Formats: sequence, structure tokens, C-alpha cells
Amino acid sequence: MTPNTPSKTSNLSHEGRRTTTIHAVGVYGASGYTGQTLLRLLGTHPQVQVAFATSESSRETLDGMELMPLADAPLDTVRAVFLCLPHGVAGKVAAEAAAKGVKVIDLSADLRLDTPELYQQTYKHEHPAPHLLPAPYGLPELNRQAIMGAAYVANPGCHVTSVLLALAPLARLKALSPDPIIADTKTGISGAGRSPKLDSMFVEVYGDVRPYNAGRVHRHVPEIEQELHKLQPDCGPLVFVPHVVPVDVGLLATVYARLKPGWNMARIRAAFLADYEHEPLIDVLPEGKAAQIKHAAHKNNAVVGIGPLVGDTLVITCAIDNLRKGAASQAVQNFNLMMGVPETVGLV
Amino acid sequence: MTPNTPSKTSNLSHEGRRTTTIHAVGVYGASGYTGQTLLRLLGTHPQVQVAFATSESSRETLDGMELMPLADAPLDTVRAVFLCLPHGVAGKVAAEAAAKGVKVIDLSADLRLDTPELYQQTYKHEHPAPHLLPAPYGLPELNRQAIMGAAYVANPGCHVTSVLLALAPLARLKALSPDPIIADTKTGISGAGRSPKLDSMFVEVYGDVRPYNAGRVHRHVPEIEQELHKLQPDCGPLVFVPHVVPVDVGLLATVYARLKPGWNMARIRAAFLADYEHEPLIDVLPEGKAAQIKHAAHKNNAVVGIGPLVGDTLVITCAIDNLRKGAASQAVQNFNLMMGVPETVGLV
Amino acid sequence: MTPNTPSKTSNLSHEGRRTTTIHAVGVYGASGYTGQTLLRLLGTHPQVQVAFATSESSRETLDGMELMPLADAPLDTVRAVFLCLPHGVAGKVAAEAAAKGVKVIDLSADLRLDTPELYQQTYKHEHPAPHLLPAPYGLPELNRQAIMGAAYVANPGCHVTSVLLALAPLARLKALSPDPIIADTKTGISGAGRSPKLDSMFVEVYGDVRPYNAGRVHRHVPEIEQELHKLQPDCGPLVFVPHVVPVDVGLLATVYARLKPGWNMARIRAAFLADYEHEPLIDVLPEGKAAQIKHAAHKNNAVVGIGPLVGDTLVITCAIDNLRKGAASQAVQNFNLMMGVPETVGLV
Amino acid sequence: MTPNTPSKTSNLSHEGRRTTTIHAVGVYGASGYTGQTLLRLLGTHPQVQVAFATSESSRETLDGMELMPLADAPLDTVRAVFLCLPHGVAGKVAAEAAAKGVKVIDLSADLRLDTPELYQQTYKHEHPAPHLLPAPYGLPELNRQAIMGAAYVANPGCHVTSVLLALAPLARLKALSPDPIIADTKTGISGAGRSPKLDSMFVEVYGDVRPYNAGRVHRHVPEIEQELHKLQPDCGPLVFVPHVVPVDVGLLATVYARLKPGWNMARIRAAFLADYEHEPLIDVLPEGKAAQIKHAAHKNNAVVGIGPLVGDTLVITCAIDNLRKGAASQAVQNFNLMMGVPETVGLV
Repeated sequence: MTPNTPSKTSNLSHEGRRTTTIHAVGVYGASGYTGQTLLRLLGTHPQVQVAFATSESSRETLDGMELMPLADAPLDTVRAVFLCLPHGVAGKVAAEAAAKGVKVIDLSADLRLDTPELYQQTYKHEHPAPHLLPAPYGLPELNRQAIMGAAYVANPGCHVTSVLLALAPLARLKALSPDPIIADTKTGISGAGRSPKLDSMFVEVYGDVRPYNAGRVHRHVPEIEQELHKLQPDCGPLVFVPHVVPVDVGLLATVYARLKPGWNMARIRAAFLADYEHEPLIDVLPEGKAAQIKHAAHKNNAVVGIGPLVGDTLVITCAIDNLRKGAASQAVQNFNLMMGVPETVGLV
Repeated sequence: MTPNTPSKTSNLSHEGRRTTTIHAVGVYGASGYTGQTLLRLLGTHPQVQVAFATSESSRETLDGMELMPLADAPLDTVRAVFLCLPHGVAGKVAAEAAAKGVKVIDLSADLRLDTPELYQQTYKHEHPAPHLLPAPYGLPELNRQAIMGAAYVANPGCHVTSVLLALAPLARLKALSPDPIIADTKTGISGAGRSPKLDSMFVEVYGDVRPYNAGRVHRHVPEIEQELHKLQPDCGPLVFVPHVVPVDVGLLATVYARLKPGWNMARIRAAFLADYEHEPLIDVLPEGKAAQIKHAAHKNNAVVGIGPLVGDTLVITCAIDNLRKGAASQAVQNFNLMMGVPETVGLV
Repeated sequence: MTPNTPSKTSNLSHEGRRTTTIHAVGVYGASGYTGQTLLRLLGTHPQVQVAFATSESSRETLDGMELMPLADAPLDTVRAVFLCLPHGVAGKVAAEAAAKGVKVIDLSADLRLDTPELYQQTYKHEHPAPHLLPAPYGLPELNRQAIMGAAYVANPGCHVTSVLLALAPLARLKALSPDPIIADTKTGISGAGRSPKLDSMFVEVYGDVRPYNAGRVHRHVPEIEQELHKLQPDCGPLVFVPHVVPVDVGLLATVYARLKPGWNMARIRAAFLADYEHEPLIDVLPEGKAAQIKHAAHKNNAVVGIGPLVGDTLVITCAIDNLRKGAASQAVQNFNLMMGVPETVGLV
Repeated sequence: MTPNTPSKTSNLSHEGRRTTTIHAVGVYGASGYTGQTLLRLLGTHPQVQVAFATSESSRETLDGMELMPLADAPLDTVRAVFLCLPHGVAGKVAAEAAAKGVKVIDLSADLRLDTPELYQQTYKHEHPAPHLLPAPYGLPELNRQAIMGAAYVANPGCHVTSVLLALAPLARLKALSPDPIIADTKTGISGAGRSPKLDSMFVEVYGDVRPYNAGRVHRHVPEIEQELHKLQPDCGPLVFVPHVVPVDVGLLATVYARLKPGWNMARIRAAFLADYEHEPLIDVLPEGKAAQIKHAAHKNNAVVGIGPLVGDTLVITCAIDNLRKGAASQAVQNFNLMMGVPETVGLV
């Protein structure tokens, strides 16, 4: 074993018969809300040892881990890194890690869009590592094969996860009509990050529901459409209105999709169950029940409610924890798949 | 002046030249959240004296007013009554009051639907006073002429007010396409009333966003469609998903409406401004701004945001205080119109 | 093994060398907030199998467990029962269980006070099972020896746990002066239970901080003083003012205690560390840090902040989750001690 | 009338017989939470015209008022200024205004402490305008005579207002024993200001109760003791623990004071009623009722609950809106007294 392949035999093994590999990992950008959640999840993951965690803004100690500047991180000592860094920065670290054979789960937006052109158009600056594109898209329920064993993956955005999970079984069967798809999401303010800003202050969020970036200007729109079009190229355009609601974590997507003729509730449910019934991290609600934020907050799974169907308009609700299935726990799920660890270890 | 014409000269008048009439009114069902808000508004209304307030559940004193049982209310001593009663009960009191020449502002659902048949279908019991139907619909911005001088009016529901205000200028110009209209509303829990129930408890509402009665099962759907069809009979059907959000008061409707060809943002804004620019209780936001609950909570006005327009899908946001423009302050507005008092007295 | 000794060999054991006993337990009153939290904790406890759960108000299924009426509960099939029942009712079930040799963790108030007289004076009705008094008081950090192997224990109230943990190290060393002890607590509304009532509704709790039962009228006062006097009989009387704050769970006690001459911060910290440093479920904060609800909410431990000392007045802060260390997780801790299971199994 | 005496005849007057003077005022530091509240109050004050409002951080328009930098403010054009500026800055503007004969209501801490020495010790920098000290302390219920006609006043801090109102009637009668006085306050986060900082972010405040600056380190302690000692020089020292609670506005002080022998509830209530019964902006609750934040939030008055008395320890609760009676509405009350306007104009 070379020095930079830091895997060791678990002290949990008995009598040398069952050995568990412990993987050393690093967390970049650990002081934000996503980073903190990720550190906590990794701290209880039986096959992970967090070797380092970085922060540019904080020298505090988080879950027993002293934060260090990115520049000091001993990248050579780990098998995988999680990047909770700003876009533009993450891609550079991803490229460096990939070059050293360290696996990358990038929670930023840098690897999510398939081409540097679409990235530049969306994020208004050059892509930091175009040679990594297109990266495997890290939504395991849609893309498990490509993630298993991948060298790096793009961990999806929180809105994207909820909207795609609400639509994927329909898109896969080309059930969506060419009409616009409405996605009205309600998200906890932790999604706006931990950097102090007026819009995230208690007094501002409390007592309010606030739409923002309505229509097609939110940066998650190209990401949703890119992945949706892989399933059904001729589906309608997305109309997306996210709203900040006064909760800390949680995200509910209420999606309104019109279907082609011939789709009734029985067929629709069958499509969702075919895709999700055996998914360990997706709960499909019984008929007549809608997903709500409480179903998923502080949990690692997504919850999907199907219906009602009004004429040809189907209402689908999908709830996730924006910091977990919308970020950190999905990153762990991707990590598990990439490393050959059973998919839900550390998550259930 | 007969004993049951309880109007007196205001002590605010000067030198006998300008006299202000003070109207005695009664409030039925004053102990609920709407009733309390109404009592507070009437308490500062310079041309109103609250002669009595009723409650079946409470003998408490509210804003200096001792509550009495409905059966003891001296209906003969007032010029107008406000009914914050359950449906089924309100209609009976409305009929009695109307028979005595006492003006009625009914905040229940009893007078809102135009026919006893639609009422029975919606509320699952016989209409308590079918001879009063159809009643003038008390949304002043749509129906001011019919309200002025009316003997009784049906005060609209809170969801209805916000959705209709979002759509009326378009419907009046027949701009809506026949496609489904999506109304996704977010409402404070006070809308569920003050009777203790599990779903309204702090622990249940806190940290959650909860859809309910999704699709077309909410009782406000027939009311919205009835009024909308008066403006544009061929508009599309409503798909309505209300959500409870963790705030006490406030309601935001995010409405997605597809328009007929030929409607661009300039023409759309012109339509809204033509209808609302001079409305004292509607604020139209500048282009690019969406309405949010904070714009309207604890205030008596509605706030409307127009756009964006995505293809032919227009996003309209409308925020109100569900207990005010969605109930009590709209009732005062109707009262003012019915009594010949300037429309915004007691409201601005 | 007799039929009503339902312990079985764990399927987690390897090769017959290490065997783990799984204990069948019953939960009475499982549909309240404490009962729900307890069911969740027991559901992940590796040495527990929940055989039944009762509710008088609900037939719902909780965490996969169908609730049954108390009268149908198969008491004979379990080794231990947890009672989340109203006072007056719990004592009867406790007596019945104790008579059958089933261990009892009583989360109600019925076994907390040492004499039937004090109980009657406090709860205004006769004690349901006076022969069980005095019962071992189930605050492990104060009373571990008596709990180990006990047939039944009285699980403390939430306010009591926080106030006693704030004072015990001082009282044990007779450090408290005879002056009044001030305990100002701030508690989440879940402490008021899951039965719908006006004071627990979202609209009422939101935006408020509400003192209640101020002084010495709260029923937890005799319980706190009884236990405190066992440690220091001559300490001063308690002045107790609980406040409801707008959070779902969590409790912070800010305690102001005057000390006898000779106590400085160094000696005070030493006293606390001597008692708590090795306690697995108590965290003592570094000097200068006060406990806050976030330290303990959704966690099973108590967090204690010591100081400042102002003259002879010491400020102690103690945060717990009122449903966990203040109720359900403390019950599991007691269960573990009673059954010979390592104390923190299922809790860390 | 000189150019810098901007008073004009009101257009509300009738026939020249009753004239109302309208005073031009300026607001410095209008973009913070206090400044915003003050601008709203002044906007509806019938005898005030806001001539200018300043902000160093914002060029936004607030309530129709364009904000300008402090340096551009036309101080000569107004009769009075309200200073919502940081300490250190406010004192300089106060001195400049006072020199020009413009009345000053200083909402900062600069004029609150009577000596430059105590100020320097508390705020760790030199006093910006020592010649203005001691300034009349602007708590009208304690100090009305000195405020009437004053050239400048020090508007009290929010914690100070609530704690002093809870203690003043006792201190005035020398009823307090020499024992420590405990003040445990619970305050909305708007008290921490509108500048973005981590501790004020929604995610941090939500779900928490957080003590801070416990003991005697909070800068309001010297201010409280200074004023209290004017009433009773031999009262005990203050032990002060403020807590942030998850509400936007409102402050509750729970005060525990020991009394000299001979004080019973009847005598205590008599003392409070003698001082407060005729105060227009203080409500004394009936016996047995404690003040809660909802009593005072969004209102201009203070609410005081007296008792219980436990031995010689009296519990007093005092609720205010920290931005109103704790800041902006108290400033208007002071302004009214200084200008000879009836005290509650614009406030009730």
C-alpha cells in the first residue's frame, strides 16, 4: 500500500474474518451549514475517518476537528474529498484531487453542467476545470451505474434533487406533455448559506414567505432541464419559483406537470413505484397524501406524494432536507457508491 | 329617529356645520381570530360604535366589550352586523337581520355561492337562507357598484381574495388561455381558526410546510371559479394547492396563468395598472418585484407583483393579511361602501 | 424461563460467545409527544423490542407500531413498561406491573413524591398506589445506586431535571446559603402535551414569551425541594418561574443561587467537575460559557454552564431537551440501569 | 421666525381659531430597526414633519423618505433631531445640534451615563461630548419634569426601561433590601441591530434561547444601577442575565427583588398603582397575572405584572416592545414632552 492510499483495517473486525476498510477523507469548506452537516454525518459513518477539514473563514473546532486553511490541507493523505466550496474554487480543487487519484464528491455547482459553455452562461465566469466535464451527475436514484466507481461526481443542488425526483419516473416514460412544467418550491433559509447577510437574518425571514429569482433566472434551472432532457428530450420548459419560508432546514417542491393523453392515476402510481419502491432513501406516500417538510427535515430520505391528477395536470410533492438529501447525505450516498461501500451505510 | 335606527351625531363635529354619523354595529362570533381582528378595527373606526359582540364559547371581555351569547344579541339596536359565524349558522342570522332592515356583512361562506345547489354540493348541507341568493359578492375592487348601498354582502374567503386579485385584470380582458390556472398559496395558520385542534398546535406547525386539500377539493375552488367566470367565462379550470406555513398571519398566492397570444409584459402591466393604480387598498409592485407576506401582514392592503412572463406563462404574486384584506378589513371596506362612509375610513 | 419472562438471545451474537439479551417492553401512552419520542428511541435501541404501545385517544400506527387501548395491553409478555400516562392513572398500572414482576419506569408524577400526603397536597387527589412510595428517584446522576436493579423508578419532571442538575454539586457539598434560590426556566411548548388546547396553539405561542405558575405554585416545586433537601437539608426555599418560549423542544434553566462564604469560582468548578466530569450524559461547558437550548435540543445529554459568580450569587445555566433528558431518554437511561444494560446504550 | 425655526401652521386647523404647530425633525441613522420604527411612528405623528433621514450604509427610500449621508443632513432646517447612531458618533452630532439650539433625543448610549469617567469605563473610549453630561435621563415615568423643555435627553436602553419600570415604585419608597436584585430578561433579536452578523441569522436564533453577557458585564448594568441609586442609594447590586429568544420584537424582564420587612402584597400594589395608575403608557395587570411579550409587542406601552411575593422575594414582570417603549416610541414620548406637545400624541 502506498503512503497516499490511506485505507486501514477496521478495529471493528472480529477474529480477522470480517474486515472493514476505513477510508480517510477530507472535507473542504466545513464551516458552512452543509459542511457542518456533512462533518456530523461522516463522524458517525463506520467506514470513514475524517482526516482534515478546511475553512477559510473560521479556525474553530467542529465536532472535534480543527479547521485548517484550504492551502494547508494534506490532500495526499486521503482517499476522497468532499468539496463544500464556492463555485469557481471547487473546480480547481477537484482537478487537483482527480489528478492525484483522490476521489471527489463536489457539492458545488462546478461539475453539474455538462459543458463549459452552459456553465459560463449560467455562472458568468470561465469554468475552472473544463477537462472534467461532463462529470457523472450524482443523483443515485437516476444515475447509480455511472456513479459506482466514478473518480468524481457532481452532487446536485437541493432544488434540483426535489424537482427531479418529482418528475423522473414520468420523464423516463416520456409521459410529460410539451406544456410548461411549474415547480413551486419552499425552502428553509439554511440554503442561503452561513455567511451573514441581511436577507438571512432572523428579523427578515421571520413571519415572511418570500419568492426569489422567479421564472427562469435561478441557476438551478439549467441543471434541472439538462437532467430532465436526458430522460425526455421533448418535455416542456420549466417555470421555477423558489420561496424562502421561515424554517431552518427542509425543502418542499410542489410540481405541476401536464401529462400526455392516456395517463391515469393507476398508471402514474405504477410508474413511481417501479422506480422508487425499492429505493432505500425514497419514501412514496400512500395515495391521497401530500409530502410536507416535516416528513423529511432532519432525515436523509426524500418523500414523494403523487397526485391529485386534475384533468391532465398532475400535482407531485417532494420533500427533502435541503442540507441532507439536498446536499450532505446525498454526498455520503455518492461516496458510498464510489467506494464500494453499501449505499446506505451511515445514512439509515 | 326610531329606536332601532341607532345613528347619532358625532362628538367630533365642529360648530354644527360638519356632522358625522356614528353607526351602531354588532359583531357575531367575536372570539375567533377574525372576530378579534374585526373588533380591533372597529374599535378605532371613527364612525362606528360596537353595540354588542357575541360568542358561544367565551364570556371573556375583548377590547372592553363583554361577549354575550348569540341568542341575547339586541339585533334591533344596530344598523349593521358582521357575521364571523360558522357556515350554516351565519345564513340564519343574515336572514333575520335582513328581514329587520339591518345591513349584513357575512364573513362566513353562506352567501358567497350564487345558488343553493352549488352551496349544498360544496358544503354538504342545505342552504340556510336560499332566498338571499345570489348576494352581492363583497370584493370591492371587482364589484364596488353592487356593494354600494346593498342590504347584505358576502365577504370573500382569504384564498379567494388573493387569487382573484391576481387574475381579475387579465380575466376582465379575456386574456387567459383555456389552459389550467395554477394557484399555489401559502397561508398562516390563523386561517384554520381559534378552536383548538392538533393540526393548529405550535409543535405541529413549527418547522413545517404542509399542503392540504390539494387539487380541486378545497371549498374555495367553486367560489374562485364562480367569480372568475363572471369576468371570463372561457378561462381554464383552477388547480389549487394551499399550504400551511409557520407564520400566524399572512397569505401569499403564487399564481401561474397562461395567456392568449399577443400578451406581452407591457400590455399585462397596463391591464393591472388600469384596474389597480387608483385602488386605495391595492399596491402594484414595480416590475421585477414579487409580493411577499411581509408586504401585507398586519396591514389592510393587498400587494400584487406582476411577472415574470415565461413563454405564455405569467407568474403573478399576491400577498394579503388573511385576517384583514382576507377577512376583517375587507368587511370594514364593504361596510363603508354599504353605509355611504368613505371607503377607507378606519383602514388607512 | 417462565413464559412471562420474554428475553431472547440476540441475533447479533457471534458464535455463542457474546450473547446479547433483547428485552421486550411495553409503552403506555405512546401517542403524546413524550411517548412518540420514547418509541423512536426504543426503536433504535439494540437490546429492546417494543411488544406493545397503548393510546386511549388514537388508533394510529406510530413507527410501525399499532396503538391499542391500555386495557388490551398484554402486560404479561414484557419485562418492563414505560408509563407516559396521566398522573392518577399511571400509579395504578405501575402497581399492577410491579405485582407481576414487570419493571416500571414511570414518566408520570405518581411515584415522584415520597409520601402520599405530599402527593395529595400537590395533585389534589388520593395517591393511586401508596404502597409503592417512596420509589427510587430516577435521576441517574444523583441516584444511580438506587436505580440499578430497582423494580420501579420515578422518572423526574423536565424542569426538575434541569434545576437539580444545576444545583446538585453545590448542595451535595452544603454550599448553598439559606437565601432563596431563583430558578427561571424557559421551555418549549411540547412540555404542555399533545392534547389540543388554546394555549398550545401556534398563533398563541408564536411571538410570545409567557411566564406561568410563577412562584411556588408549579407542581414541580415540591419535587425539586424534596430531592434538593436530601442533599442539603438547610438550603433556601425555591422561587420558580417557568416561561413558555416559541420553540417546540428544549428547556433552559437559569438558576441564581447564593453560596456560603468561602466559595470561589475555582472551588465551584471543581465541585461540578468532580460530580459530572465522567458523566456520559452531562457536558460541562468551559468557563465563561453559558448553556443555551441549542446545545441540548434533539440530544440526549444535559449541558451545564457554571458562572459567573457575582458577589455570592452564582449563575448556573442548564439546558436539556425536555422530551429527552427531561423525559424519554432519561427513561431509557433508567431502564438500562435497571436491566443491567450499559447505561448509555441506545442513547449515544 | 428665523430660517432655522421650521415650525408652520398646521393645515388641520379650522378657521384660524385652533392652530397646531408642525415641527420639522431629522432622523439620524434611519435604516436600522430602531430608525425604521421611529420613521413609521413619526410618519403618522400629526405634529411632525420628517425633513430628512440619514444612513451611512443605505441609499434606499424608507416610508417615502430618501436616505442621505449624515454629512449632508441639513441640521439647520429642523427643530429637533433623533439620533439612532452608534455610540461615539451620536454624541458628536448631539453636541453640534445642541450648539445650534436644535433639540436632541439621543437613542444611543452617549448621554445616558452621568459622568465621562463611567462612560469611558463602560464603553472603552473617551466620551465624545463630555460637556453635555449629565443629560436629563429620558424615562418619562421617572423623570418627566426634567425632560419637559430640556434641550437634549438620553433615551434609555431597552433592558433598562423594562428593569427600571419593574423596580422604580419600590425603590422610590426605599423598599428594596440590600440583597442582590436578579433581572432575567428575554429579548427579541431585533435588539442586536440590523447589521448582518452570524448570531443574528435565522438559522442561529431559530429554536434557541441564548443567554449572553451574563452577570454584570452587559453595558446596561451601570445605566440601570445609576438610575436605581437615584431612587434608593442603598439598594442591592444587580445580577443581570439577558437571553435572546426567537422572536423579532419584544422584551420581557422577570425581576426578583427582596424587600425590607413590612412589605406585603397590598402595600406593594398600592406603591405600583400610586406611580403607574395614571400613566398613559403603562398598564398594571390585575393581581395574579404576569406580563408576557404579547402584551406589549407592536405596542407603545409597557405592561407590568406584580407578584407573587414568596417570603420576602417579589417577582415583577415587565414587558415592552424593545423597538418602541424600549427605543422609538419612548423617543417620541420624550420629543412630545420637550416640545410641549401632549405626551401621547402619535402614540395612542
